[in-house]
Amino acid sequence: QLDRERFIETMREQAEIGGTEDGGLHRLALSDEDKRIRDWFADRMEAEGLEVRVDEFGNMFGRREGTDPDADPVLVGSHLDSQPYGGIYDGAMGVISALELVRTLNEEGIETTHPIEIVNWTNEEGSRFQPAMQGSGVWAGAHDLEEEYATTDADGVEFEAELERIGYKGDVPAEPTTEYEAYLELHIEQGPSLELEGKDVGVVTGIVGFTWGAITYYGEADHSGPTPMHYRSDALVAAADVITQIRRIPSTLGDRTVGTTGYIDAEPNSINIIPSEVTFTWGFRDPDDAVVEEAFARVLDEAEAAADREGLDWEWEERMRAPSVDFADQCIDAVDAAAADLGYDSMHIFSGAGHDATHLTEICDTGMVFAVSEDGKSHTEAEYTSWDDCYASANTLANAALDIAES
Amino acid sequence: QLDRERFIETMREQAEIGGTEDGGLHRLALSDEDKRIRDWFADRMEAEGLEVRVDEFGNMFGRREGTDPDADPVLVGSHLDSQPYGGIYDGAMGVISALELVRTLNEEGIETTHPIEIVNWTNEEGSRFQPAMQGSGVWAGAHDLEEEYATTDADGVEFEAELERIGYKGDVPAEPTTEYEAYLELHIEQGPSLELEGKDVGVVTGIVGFTWGAITYYGEADHSGPTPMHYRSDALVAAADVITQIRRIPSTLGDRTVGTTGYIDAEPNSINIIPSEVTFTWGFRDPDDAVVEEAFARVLDEAEAAADREGLDWEWEERMRAPSVDFADQCIDAVDAAAADLGYDSMHIFSGAGHDATHLTEICDTGMVFAVSEDGKSHTEAEYTSWDDCYASANTLANAALDIAES
Ligand SMILES: NC(=O)NCCC(=O)O
Ligand SMILES: NC(=O)NCCC(=O)O
Repeated sequence: QLDRERFIETMREQAEIGGTEDGGLHRLALSDEDKRIRDWFADRMEAEGLEVRVDEFGNMFGRREGTDPDADPVLVGSHLDSQPYGGIYDGAMGVISALELVRTLNEEGIETTHPIEIVNWTNEEGSRFQPAMQGSGVWAGAHDLEEEYATTDADGVEFEAELERIGYKGDVPAEPTTEYEAYLELHIEQGPSLELEGKDVGVVTGIVGFTWGAITYYGEADHSGPTPMHYRSDALVAAADVITQIRRIPSTLGDRTVGTTGYIDAEPNSINIIPSEVTFTWGFRDPDDAVVEEAFARVLDEAEAAADREGLDWEWEERMRAPSVDFADQCIDAVDAAAADLGYDSMHIFSGAGHDATHLTEICDTGMVFAVSEDGKSHTEAEYTSWDDCYASANTLANAALDIAES
Repeated sequence: QLDRERFIETMREQAEIGGTEDGGLHRLALSDEDKRIRDWFADRMEAEGLEVRVDEFGNMFGRREGTDPDADPVLVGSHLDSQPYGGIYDGAMGVISALELVRTLNEEGIETTHPIEIVNWTNEEGSRFQPAMQGSGVWAGAHDLEEEYATTDADGVEFEAELERIGYKGDVPAEPTTEYEAYLELHIEQGPSLELEGKDVGVVTGIVGFTWGAITYYGEADHSGPTPMHYRSDALVAAADVITQIRRIPSTLGDRTVGTTGYIDAEPNSINIIPSEVTFTWGFRDPDDAVVEEAFARVLDEAEAAADREGLDWEWEERMRAPSVDFADQCIDAVDAAAADLGYDSMHIFSGAGHDATHLTEICDTGMVFAVSEDGKSHTEAEYTSWDDCYASANTLANAALDIAES
């Protein structure tokens, strides 16, 4: 059993770094706030006697040795970056739970067969820089290091320059330097299912696949008055056409398919000028990769049709494609058992959000624990999980990890 | 006949203040660039011996006395502010032509019966602050001074504070302090008609009416993955629905009706967050006020339907309503005659853009001269009028004004 008071106290402590007035968190990847939470986390790991290392992509690890020199480490963690004006639980709770696990083992003098490593992955959120799950993706070999260094935020600032600026371009290669026994991650559900079913914790069985991308239309700026309608090449009208289809396409594909436009930027953005350049994004997810592929094809068809109607040049870029993944029985079973042992009512759930665990499935047995998200809200300051639910999921994670680490 | 070389030289001179790399103009109302062009214009008026006055809304006047103390002045001018990355002719050419008229009269020692006043109206463009034609609207009594002082730009900066900052809150009341004989304004057409008809100048017979406004949707930020489609209140999807209707509504109303969304802003604007707040604008124009009223009603109906579909709160604000106006025979005839005398091929044309002349029709006989706009382009750096066409329209304006001033 983790120390409930200390766990809550530590959750509150981390939430102050980049905390917002309305009780949320604004801690974008590689921002000053991200540097401060990293410094804080490195301190806390050192205080527990962990051997801390930072890899060249900024992923932070802390290692606690096991008793068997031949046993592969069990990796536990999540991410400390946040969405713009996001919540205090998303990501952070997975890292704090991993830290509390180590603190409890130290306090109670528990030795494990396998080493335990705890981890904070770089840029999981994918809001400032795309793709999401970028640090774990590089580390697991899904992405090329140099290509990801070269990604830029909406202001054109480069990832690598920002990583150096905050002092977290480490000296260890961004790749597994050993085999791993398993990876476990705790996260809030971010959807409404656990609450609707009245469960205490979720045993995650896999993660949806997704495609993210951006479309840019190039029309012609002109006067909004004397320019006849049929003379116009309006970049915003075409974007609007596609955005309405992004709302509609999921309903033609599957009952778990979702589609969203989260970002739009129009130029010159003046009330009486026909918009000449508009960039907007798509995002589609589904448990079935074939459905994701179909949604991707559909949005490009719609984009082309809208470009033709308005007479626009256009280009598109897929910014992320993640496969749907299934978790390992070893991990699912360990989480099932931990929840049952602790007396929590649990259920199996397939994640609709992406997680670093997606990429970890390429490296080792992987599993996740979900905490209840009140009203399903996430990526907003309104995100909320009661301390009871937080603690239930953290305890489940700790016991599942210990179970595997002692095996 | 105006001095062609000096006219072109003066057009080039003004275009350097706020000139862009690509040969356009970025001289937003009440910006530093606006201050510099105002200083420049005041200097040039003083150099011609004009009696300069600035009213409390920043409208700038220069007066040249006439021979008859009982004759009302003829007012000639336009505006020196520009669109963001707009063209060098829009507005500026009307003010420069008025200045050249005075210069020519001075040079040739021509006295006129009526005084001649030249004018630079504040914020004609309506891009930074809405409404457009704001200075002439206040001056002509269409708007309340204090209400217009309180308008803000997209960053929340107040009109009055900016006017004071650039030093152009004058001491003369913003209203006509005398009767006026007539108002004449030269402007580029900003549409394709004169070029399509192969004409040298346009004799403007009136101006379309219009409605401008903004709609804001309030949805709920949430995660773009695990949030089921039917759980969403997506502010951007509703905005996109309405934007596509703003493209469509004109085709159901009339062949001169136009509808445009020029501006959109989405929050929090992150690829994997469902947009929680979106503001966007409408603009509709037609020669018939009843059609404008119908378009206004339709867009609000569409906005309400979209809000209902997405389950959004919403609000709207009409930022401008201008009536369609017809010009006075005295002015139309004078412009017709001037064009004919100078040997220019002219045609009557009804303006699809708004102009300060709209409000002046409430004060005195009003008319306008249009210059050819190549390819109809305006409100973009690509705006272009050949010097031949510029000069033809300036000469027409000068002769029409002189004709009335000598009557
Ligand atoms: N879990 C989470 O919010 N990850 C960020 C990437 C995504 O949008 O799924
Ligand atoms: N002539 C002109 O561009 N005026 C600005 C207001 C409008 O959009 O009509």
